[in-house]
Amino acid sequence: SQSSHRLLAYSDALISIIATVMILPVAHTAVETNEELRQSLQVLLSTKIAVFLMTFLIVSMAWAAHSRLFQVIVRIDDSLALFNLVCMMLITLLPYTFSLMASFPEHVLGILLFCSCVMVIGMVQTVIVIYAFRRPHLLHQRLQGSPHLPEYQHHLLRVILRVPLMCLLASLAAAVCFQLSYVLLAVVIFLPYMSSWLQWLRIKVLGPEEEPAGELLLYSFLPHEPVSKERLEAFSDGVYAIVATLLILDICEDNVPDPSVVSQRFNGSLVLALRSYGPEYLAYFGSFATVGLLWFVHHSLFLHVTKVTRLMGLLNTFSLAFVGGLPLAYQLTHEFPRHSQNELEAIQISCVIIFFAGLFQLCIWVVALHSQKECLGPAVRYGGREHLLMFAKLWLYPCVALGTFLLTCVLSQFSSPIFHLMELTVPVAFLLLRLLLRLLLALRHSL
Amino acid sequence: SQSSHRLLAYSDALISIIATVMILPVAHTAVETNEELRQSLQVLLSTKIAVFLMTFLIVSMAWAAHSRLFQVIVRIDDSLALFNLVCMMLITLLPYTFSLMASFPEHVLGILLFCSCVMVIGMVQTVIVIYAFRRPHLLHQRLQGSPHLPEYQHHLLRVILRVPLMCLLASLAAAVCFQLSYVLLAVVIFLPYMSSWLQWLRIKVLGPEEEPAGELLLYSFLPHEPVSKERLEAFSDGVYAIVATLLILDICEDNVPDPSVVSQRFNGSLVLALRSYGPEYLAYFGSFATVGLLWFVHHSLFLHVTKVTRLMGLLNTFSLAFVGGLPLAYQLTHEFPRHSQNELEAIQISCVIIFFAGLFQLCIWVVALHSQKECLGPAVRYGGREHLLMFAKLWLYPCVALGTFLLTCVLSQFSSPIFHLMELTVPVAFLLLRLLLRLLLALRHSL
Ligand SMILES: [K+]
Ligand SMILES: [K+]
Ligand SMILES: [K+]
Ligand SMILES: [K+]
Ligand SMILES: [K+]
Ligand SMILES: [K+]
Ligand SMILES: [K+]
Repeated sequence: SQSSHRLLAYSDALISIIATVMILPVAHTAVETNEELRQSLQVLLSTKIAVFLMTFLIVSMAWAAHSRLFQVIVRIDDSLALFNLVCMMLITLLPYTFSLMASFPEHVLGILLFCSCVMVIGMVQTVIVIYAFRRPHLLHQRLQGSPHLPEYQHHLLRVILRVPLMCLLASLAAAVCFQLSYVLLAVVIFLPYMSSWLQWLRIKVLGPEEEPAGELLLYSFLPHEPVSKERLEAFSDGVYAIVATLLILDICEDNVPDPSVVSQRFNGSLVLALRSYGPEYLAYFGSFATVGLLWFVHHSLFLHVTKVTRLMGLLNTFSLAFVGGLPLAYQLTHEFPRHSQNELEAIQISCVIIFFAGLFQLCIWVVALHSQKECLGPAVRYGGREHLLMFAKLWLYPCVALGTFLLTCVLSQFSSPIFHLMELTVPVAFLLLRLLLRLLLALRHSL
Repeated sequence: SQSSHRLLAYSDALISIIATVMILPVAHTAVETNEELRQSLQVLLSTKIAVFLMTFLIVSMAWAAHSRLFQVIVRIDDSLALFNLVCMMLITLLPYTFSLMASFPEHVLGILLFCSCVMVIGMVQTVIVIYAFRRPHLLHQRLQGSPHLPEYQHHLLRVILRVPLMCLLASLAAAVCFQLSYVLLAVVIFLPYMSSWLQWLRIKVLGPEEEPAGELLLYSFLPHEPVSKERLEAFSDGVYAIVATLLILDICEDNVPDPSVVSQRFNGSLVLALRSYGPEYLAYFGSFATVGLLWFVHHSLFLHVTKVTRLMGLLNTFSLAFVGGLPLAYQLTHEFPRHSQNELEAIQISCVIIFFAGLFQLCIWVVALHSQKECLGPAVRYGGREHLLMFAKLWLYPCVALGTFLLTCVLSQFSSPIFHLMELTVPVAFLLLRLLLRLLLALRHSL
């Protein structure tokens, strides 16, 4: 048997990239510049963005299920590695089948394809579980000598097959009435979230039920269940990395001028040709700084997180979904003519995206503070040495994004420069923040 | 100070994605289907592919330099994390400035932009080194109490600044004669490779020179110098993951039919519309299987590798450069009309790409076997338990690709089905191989 470390790192990279890269078909939608915004943008928002967000949530759910499965199966062999590759290939089909379903909501085939994709993933995971439970040396140490192994396998399969069974129901329902199957699918997608909230509510109202066997806690839907911190970080890194790359990809595809254009329109002067791309470069630097610093805040926060609960994982997924929307924001801000109403709204959308990405990061911290003894290192707990600094770091982006949004509403003439200035000054603000807090602390000590 | 683990994982993901994603502008080149292949394909090959390969090598070199720098600086703090983000942003500009230079070979501006990008990266790395050497607790344990710290910093800076200085020379030379600056740049790009070969030759001819101080070995250009195995794996994972994703991205962008097209051309039948994409799906499954299994072979090999030398790292980079070309091959094979001469050549190009990707993996193994006591685990050394299996795994892809190439030459009518059949049967061949070897071993034991 082999260590599963690299297999999981590869799966994290693959799934995070697939979840995020689906913003490209949205971002590459040709926007008609001659028609006024309200219409084109609202159609864009109502369908394509919704599809992207749903795809992101669905793929994140598949990742979460994969992550929890491999918290139980901790070692692998060649066959498991190959089964996992099949599983990965099926996960890559989720965005495609989902967008087919979204494009043809009234065709039963779309529903059937998406549901069968989910069902086949469930089948492959079932095979993985059965294969691994026949070789207990592949399992988590706490399970290896356990007499309850068959019960545990049963429990695991029941949890894994819950979603595929709902999909089976949905595809059967599609034969009768396709609206019904969408209701069922909506239940499927929100099932883990709902079930964890229901369990949480039950615990709050009725008090904790009879304690489940210790090992069963490893695979449940409780909101306090620990999530693998290492894998959550790897998944987040993948999202931040691909977003940063999609930005430069746009620059490389669109902003290398054609030699014939340069010789005809710019009298052969490459300097003039590149100067016309000035706003694009500014937008790139600003966007990269934003993505990089959001990663930096995430990194700073998780350095001090000692245990990640499912609720924190969920908030992280929401934050990442907004980060994944940044390439769209970047594309929109420089696709419209300057000083148009469209450009103003595109910049405001960017502010909203940055605001929510930062806000959900802040929520992770608030939830972690709620049970700080388990979840946080001593330095950032209430009264800790770095508590104030962390607080400031996490507040910075939501505040700045909100402030920029309000400023662009008031000074609508200067929206674009204000926005890029904001993006580029935040790094400086980080350093100033640090100095300021040090001064404050030094002052407090001396008094 | 903080552990640098996650910073490095993020950098690996970012750099590997940037290096690989630059295949997209190549793959998205509109191929005129009406003109015959020799011309369009040869223009494509001679320029765009060369640019992609050079970009990949340059970004890989930047990665290797980054990797070696952070073998010396092993812990980080907030400021180093921010410096590193600046460094990452500059590395993302390398492909853009390089393709500007390649598109406008006779404009001095292209050369200047590329050279200044390299020089600014060198400056940021200098800042990182000076910052870290003032805080020795960030350095590798072997350096922390060393009295030679200033000399070591000097040595490090000299090695880091070698390439930027050459670029400064090249940009000065551009003022006189731009051909000269290309010669200098070519020297820059191949400098690390040449210098390691020269050192190797010198050792072979003159015998090892006076042993450098033990700590100096940490940052030299010797071909036997160890490379961080963990980072090499993370970088490779990033390349394999993004290649697999680019394949499905094409499917999602091009193969979701437009509702109006379905209702007009296919009488509203989604089944018929999707059936017309049949060859695309087949190509996707085949390509994903190929990428997945090449990753699997890489993973199997590096499970048993205990030390990675610079030469092995270099061979790995070459293998990855061909893996990065797979999306282009995938795009070409289904862009041309069936049974055309173009399609045949596209399929042969795919075979060549797969052949070299596999061959360089095999070379890593051959080099590792050459000093097997240091580089390989006991199970795969000569006479080891899994030596034969590893040998077979590594030979499989080169052999199959070569065989397919020859078959498509002979049976040129059936090239496309043969190719996809090959791609889809290799996974089965892996399992058969395993069984066969077990049988052979069992037979040998019983005799
Ligand atoms: K652009
Ligand atoms: K999650
Ligand atoms: K604009
Ligand atoms: K990774
Ligand atoms: K396609
Ligand atoms: K290398
Ligand atoms: K074809």
